[in-house]
Parts: sequence; structure tokens; C-alpha cells
Amino acid sequence: AWAQSSVSIYGRVNTTAEHVKLSGSSAHNELRNNGSNLGFQGEEDLGSGLKAGFLFEMDIDSTSGAADGFGSQSEVWLGGGWGRVRLGNYGGQSFKTIVEEISLHNDNVGTSADWLFADIMPADHHIGYVSPEFGGLVLELGLSSKDDRLQQDGVKKNAYELIANYDVGDLSLAASYVDYDQADQVSLRALYSLGDFQFGGYWQRDKNGWVDDGGQRNNYRLVGIYNLGNSEFHLNVGHADKYKKVAGSAATQWTLAWNYNFSKRTKVYALYTELDNGRNAFYGEDAGVARAGQDLKAFAIGLRHYF
Amino acid sequence: AWAQSSVSIYGRVNTTAEHVKLSGSSAHNELRNNGSNLGFQGEEDLGSGLKAGFLFEMDIDSTSGAADGFGSQSEVWLGGGWGRVRLGNYGGQSFKTIVEEISLHNDNVGTSADWLFADIMPADHHIGYVSPEFGGLVLELGLSSKDDRLQQDGVKKNAYELIANYDVGDLSLAASYVDYDQADQVSLRALYSLGDFQFGGYWQRDKNGWVDDGGQRNNYRLVGIYNLGNSEFHLNVGHADKYKKVAGSAATQWTLAWNYNFSKRTKVYALYTELDNGRNAFYGEDAGVARAGQDLKAFAIGLRHYF
Amino acid sequence: AWAQSSVSIYGRVNTTAEHVKLSGSSAHNELRNNGSNLGFQGEEDLGSGLKAGFLFEMDIDSTSGAADGFGSQSEVWLGGGWGRVRLGNYGGQSFKTIVEEISLHNDNVGTSADWLFADIMPADHHIGYVSPEFGGLVLELGLSSKDDRLQQDGVKKNAYELIANYDVGDLSLAASYVDYDQADQVSLRALYSLGDFQFGGYWQRDKNGWVDDGGQRNNYRLVGIYNLGNSEFHLNVGHADKYKKVAGSAATQWTLAWNYNFSKRTKVYALYTELDNGRNAFYGEDAGVARAGQDLKAFAIGLRHYF
Repeated sequence: AWAQSSVSIYGRVNTTAEHVKLSGSSAHNELRNNGSNLGFQGEEDLGSGLKAGFLFEMDIDSTSGAADGFGSQSEVWLGGGWGRVRLGNYGGQSFKTIVEEISLHNDNVGTSADWLFADIMPADHHIGYVSPEFGGLVLELGLSSKDDRLQQDGVKKNAYELIANYDVGDLSLAASYVDYDQADQVSLRALYSLGDFQFGGYWQRDKNGWVDDGGQRNNYRLVGIYNLGNSEFHLNVGHADKYKKVAGSAATQWTLAWNYNFSKRTKVYALYTELDNGRNAFYGEDAGVARAGQDLKAFAIGLRHYF
Repeated sequence: AWAQSSVSIYGRVNTTAEHVKLSGSSAHNELRNNGSNLGFQGEEDLGSGLKAGFLFEMDIDSTSGAADGFGSQSEVWLGGGWGRVRLGNYGGQSFKTIVEEISLHNDNVGTSADWLFADIMPADHHIGYVSPEFGGLVLELGLSSKDDRLQQDGVKKNAYELIANYDVGDLSLAASYVDYDQADQVSLRALYSLGDFQFGGYWQRDKNGWVDDGGQRNNYRLVGIYNLGNSEFHLNVGHADKYKKVAGSAATQWTLAWNYNFSKRTKVYALYTELDNGRNAFYGEDAGVARAGQDLKAFAIGLRHYF
Repeated sequence: AWAQSSVSIYGRVNTTAEHVKLSGSSAHNELRNNGSNLGFQGEEDLGSGLKAGFLFEMDIDSTSGAADGFGSQSEVWLGGGWGRVRLGNYGGQSFKTIVEEISLHNDNVGTSADWLFADIMPADHHIGYVSPEFGGLVLELGLSSKDDRLQQDGVKKNAYELIANYDVGDLSLAASYVDYDQADQVSLRALYSLGDFQFGGYWQRDKNGWVDDGGQRNNYRLVGIYNLGNSEFHLNVGHADKYKKVAGSAATQWTLAWNYNFSKRTKVYALYTELDNGRNAFYGEDAGVARAGQDLKAFAIGLRHYF
């Protein structure tokens, strides 16, 4: 509405053709959406080192066009030399910092996304503060009030999130802590670049993250990447120990992927992924797993375009 | 699709952290959306003084990202020296002209919006005509047909709206008349600028505007603004008399607000607002009032960014 | 998100005021949406003759602003000298090629759209290939897998679509074949320009296209256009024979339209249309026809603006 406004439009369309096999069912071939979205964002220089900005992001199912509001992210922020205050639906920063920063073979979307991480923090009705950078270190604090949680989830508990990111040279480190209702989690993540290689991993310990009264669980993931010209070769392996009070609830997930980058924005890729649920583990529901103990295997070829 | 096209994107993100107290309930702290939206508009010069254009505007809940189509406004128009014809979902111009032009402390959105004005005109399936300006005077006529109203509301009555705006120097005046089904309203509004001050107010008389067979009601509002550098200080007081046939249905609303403008687009603000419902008055339902006679008090701090 | 990105926004707002008469009901006056939409698209040059791109398109009811995701079209594509691969919700190309290319008086939207064509191909979960041009000839092949159809429609059958377009000088020809579940169709279309005139038509033979176990049906349409300065005069006549096994299922539809183009993007228009359903024919449900055998007559004036 004002002359100096400039809104940028961005997004991702990522669609795969997949051969999917769920144990106990016959294999099938299908098109799948892989985290396609559309966003609007902008920022304004307020002078004196101050800035303000916004972001609205919508998930879109690329195979059907289905979309339902800007639930992916919405926020308004005000920042300066003292850091940044954020308000809106942008939470779950732990997930972004710990998981998305290393699950690089396909932006952590689609069938081979990390299904084992316990993502406890609600995203909506979030207020937070991001520190300025101190020699590579950035801290972020997030909160959703018990009154908001009561209205949204029926749970009268504040939800907290604390995140630290530390980047120095070829090494990137992060730590996060989340506490909400009966669940909490702590996690550490590292990513290291060595020439054409990248190595990364995380460790997470959560309590009741996926299972009410399940007790504690350890969850690990390791990734390796080799870059060769326009190609990337990825190996991604995760293992969740059983929840202490739930026998047979361990699971393992691994993915082998090849990406061919036509440009920074556009790639084709092929991947093979397996998710092996213990007899009482029920991970991967959003990937099609329909019952505890069911295993998933999929081979996918895809086309991803950023805009 | 055509080379000469230029669509502009605009919108507002406005989020508050509020301490809210409803009588009979315990106080709570929450994030609230304040009329956040996203719009697309454009116009085309057709030559010979003719222009055509469109507007699509979507409400977005900034605290959750929830959105549901372009119900906020959608229209196509054709205009020239003879005025402008408008078609679409853009009605309720009386509300915009009378209320929004003086409820300036927070764009008449959020907890402290004017809850007393009887907004009778349906917004959808609207066809209208806007006159050219005659020495500061602009007339607008709107209509929604009885056949459309029957399909939308089950009411086989035409809905009419007539509005006059007159701007001269530091004075802005408006009048509106709406008639639909059993309800009608007439209202007058004035806004006057005097140096660093602005003064405004409206008077509305409606019949059955909020209550079926409630009879007549008078509704008044006064506002005062003092501008000091980047700051604005606002006082906004409204009072609705009782509906003639409903004892105890009067209500009073007042707001004290401070705005600090970083720029024309971005402000932070704090406000205190009260809504006092008579024992049979049920105003402010969208602000959280849950029953007749319940009062609302809220203290809010907020961040608003236009883009 | 990347510097070289450029997304274009496009769309259409098209609204009519109509006098509608359905046989057996009283006439009524209403505003109607005519295929209004909003889209985002872009493409990227990948070098070596390769390109990639995307498109998201949303239908919007211009009379109410109602919208529900990008169900109109969503796709990502990769193309080169060898043709183009498309993935997403973009099917029903037969409809676009056969019907939309000749139903020119109002973009085949609104009350006077072609209600007789049997559009068998599902649009979602579509994968396809478009050939390069060979001397005016372009072939397109589309597929939706039986596993996707089972999930979407409960029908375990592949859906196929094959289309040929041939353009030479003032003549444009097309043919299409679709096979899905119990239904199939074949159709041929021609459009010819002769000075200020255009003539076109199609023939379609389908089996069970609108009626389960209805058998075969022939469907014809003829259109003529005369261009005079900024005006266009259109005549559009369609006739569907009865389904072989359903007596009284024939129907006729015709439209007379005048378009006045202020520019390529903006027109006003007036049209009169009739749809005459045989006693067992139930065409035009989306235009308001409520039972088999009901006839529709409508006079509409409208304003259409592309952006």
C-alpha cells in the first residue's frame, strides 16, 4: 500500500513418482507431494539500525492443489542491534535447527523425511526473541502461553523453547531444549564440511515425546554427503531407541539419495528409503504407515523447483 | 498474463500480546490477531478516461496462519468521468466510511474495535455505483438483490446502501443509510484536524440492527487524537443506548491508546480498553464476550506492519 | 528465495448480473461468478536448452471471495528440445484443447459454458509428456495411475489421455482420446479464421461419459464469430444426442453473445443462453439446473478483467 513496499514471493514445488511398499500391503505407484509451498515476505528498513518485516507461508499439495491457509508460517517481527522480537505462528524452531539443517537430501520433506525426531513445540501463538550474533553464537527463546495452549490444545501449560546455534568456519553446531506439558526434549546437532564432503548428525533425548507416559528415549541420526560436479550423493541413517516403558518401540530409518542440480533452484533426484518400525513403534504415519509395526520401503524419482 | 499487467501485493500483519479479563472469568494472557490480511490489486488504463481494476483481499489470523479465501473483499470495477461501477463482495461501505474513518487508534481491528455500530449491509453479491467528485462530495450507492439475499441468507429482501462523503480542507463529513430486511440504520460522521489534534465522532440511529424486533437505538462515538512527533495519543469512547424494547441493553466502550510510529508502515502500540455491557447487552462476541452482560477489559501491546 | 527468481501473478475477475429462468421456477436476478481466478507462475532457464517452471492457480468466487486452495491447477515441469515432462494437478487437457479453444464468447465459464462435453479425465495426480513441435503438430500424453485413482476415487483403473494439436496458417485442428474406468471419449475439433470471421466446431463420441452404463453418445458443437472493430459477435450451438440406453436424454444448448473489448484485458459483454434438457437429461447442474428435464434460460451482462 505504500510506495516503498516490496513483497517477495517465493516457494517450492516438489513432486515425486514413487513405488511404495508397506509391509502387509501390496506395492503401489503414486505421485506424492514433497513439501510444496508458496510464501510472501518483506522487510522494511526503519533507520537507526531498526528493521521490521513479515512472512506468510502456505503449504500446497502439488498433486492436487489442496491448500488451507498460511499454517506453514506467519509472523511479524521487529529487530535491531539488540536482537529480534517475533510474534506469530513460527514455532518449532528446534525442529528446523536440529533436523532440517542436516536432513539435506530432500529438504526433509516427503516420504524420506525424518519421522523419528520428537517435535514437541507447538508452532502457533508463539512469541520469541532472537539474540544478535556473538562471535558465531545466536540464541533463540520461544514461548507459547498456557492461556493460548489451553484454548488451542486444552493443555494449561506454558510451552518453552530454547535454541543455540554456533557457526565457525566449516563447522555448525546447535543445541535445543523444549518443555511442554508432560513432554520435553534436549538435542544436539553438528554439521561439518570437508572439501567435497559434508558430515552431520544429531542426538536427541526426549521424554514422552511421541508416547504419553512412554518415559525416556534416545534418538540418533547420521548423514553423509558427497558432492561431485552437479551431483550430490546422500546417506541418511536414523535410529530411535525404544521408549523406556514401551517394549518393541525402537525404529530405524535410512535413505540413499542422488540429486542432480540443474541450478541452485532446480534438481531431479532419485532416492530409496526404508523405515523399519519395531512391533510397537508407529512412526511415519504421514508417509502412509497405518499401524504399529508396519515397515515402509519406497523408491522415488522427483523434480524440485524453487521460485 | 498480458505484458502491461502490474499487480500490487499489499497487506497488514498486526499482532498483540494481551492481558484480558472477562467479568466472571479469570484473567488470561494471549496473543491475538488484529485484522491481518493479504491483498492483490491492480488497475488498467483503458484510454479515453476509462479505467478498470480489481481487488482480492484475504483475512489471515497472524497467530495461527488460518485463512479462508478472499472473503475480506473481492471486486472488479470499471470507471470513468461518469463515476465507477463496482461488482463483487465489497459491501458494508457504511461501516468503512462511518466507523473506520474515525476509529484510528488501531485501524478498528482487534479487541478495541468498535463493537457497537450496527453493520446491517451484507458485503457479498454487491453491485454499486460511485459518483465522481463534485467539489468534495462523493456519493455511493450499493445494492444486493433479493434473489441473491434469498440464496445467501434466506431473506427475500433487497439490501440497499446509500453513502455521502464530503471533504473540505481539514473537515471530513459522511452520512450513510442502510435498509435490509427488518433492520435499517442512518448515521452521520465528522472528523476535523486542528494542528496536532484530530477530533471526530459519529451518531447512528438503527432499528433492529443487533436485535430482532428490538426497536430503535441511538449509538454515539467520540474520538480525540494528539500527535506528538512519532507518537499518537488516542481516546475513543462509544455509548449505545438500549434498544427501545430491550431493558438493560445499553453498553459503553472506551479505549486509551498510545502509538509509536517507526514509519508510516510500522508501529508499536499499547492500549487499554473496556467494554461494559448492560445486563441484557451482548456486544463484543468476536472479542471473546461469551454471554449477555459480560464485561471486557484488556491491556494490549502490539506490533503492526503494513506491506 | 533466489535472486534470479521472477514469479508472475495473473488472473481473471469476471462477474455478471443475470436474469435467470429455470423451467418450473420463477425467474430471478443475481450476480454470478464466471471463472474468476488468481495464479502464480514462473520459469527458469537452466541453460543447454533446458527450462523448468511451475504454476499454481486458484479459483475464486468473485461474488463472495470464496476460494479453496489451488485446485484449478498446480504443476511443476521440466522441458527441453525433447519436449516437456509435467507433474501435478493439470489434467483434463482434452477439455481445454477441444472445448476451451472454440468456446470463445466467454472463456467457457459461467452460465453459458459448454455443459454437454463429457470430461472424463481426472485432473489431479497427473503425469504427462508434451512433444516438441513437428511442423505445427504437438502431441501430449497424460496418465494418472490406478493406485492414485484408487486413493482419490476408489477406482482401481489407470486414466489415460492422448491429445494432438495441429496448427497451420489460419487453421487449428485437435484430436483427443481419454479412457478411464467404464468411460471413454474421442473428439475432434477445428477452428478456422477467415478475415473478420472465425468458424469452429467439435464432434465428440463418448461412452458412459455422463451416465453409468448409458452406452454411446454423439455430441456436436458449432461456433461462429464476427469481429467488428472492438466488438465481437458470437453464436455458439451445441447438441448432445441421447445416450444409447437412456431415452429422452438428448439436449441442446445455444448462446448469442456480444463482447465489447476496451482492451485485450478488459471487456463488457451481454449474452443470451438457453439449455434445453430432454426429459431424462440433467445437464447444467453447475449453472443451477436442479433436476432432469429442467431447462435454463439466462440473459447476462458482465465485466471481465484480466490481470
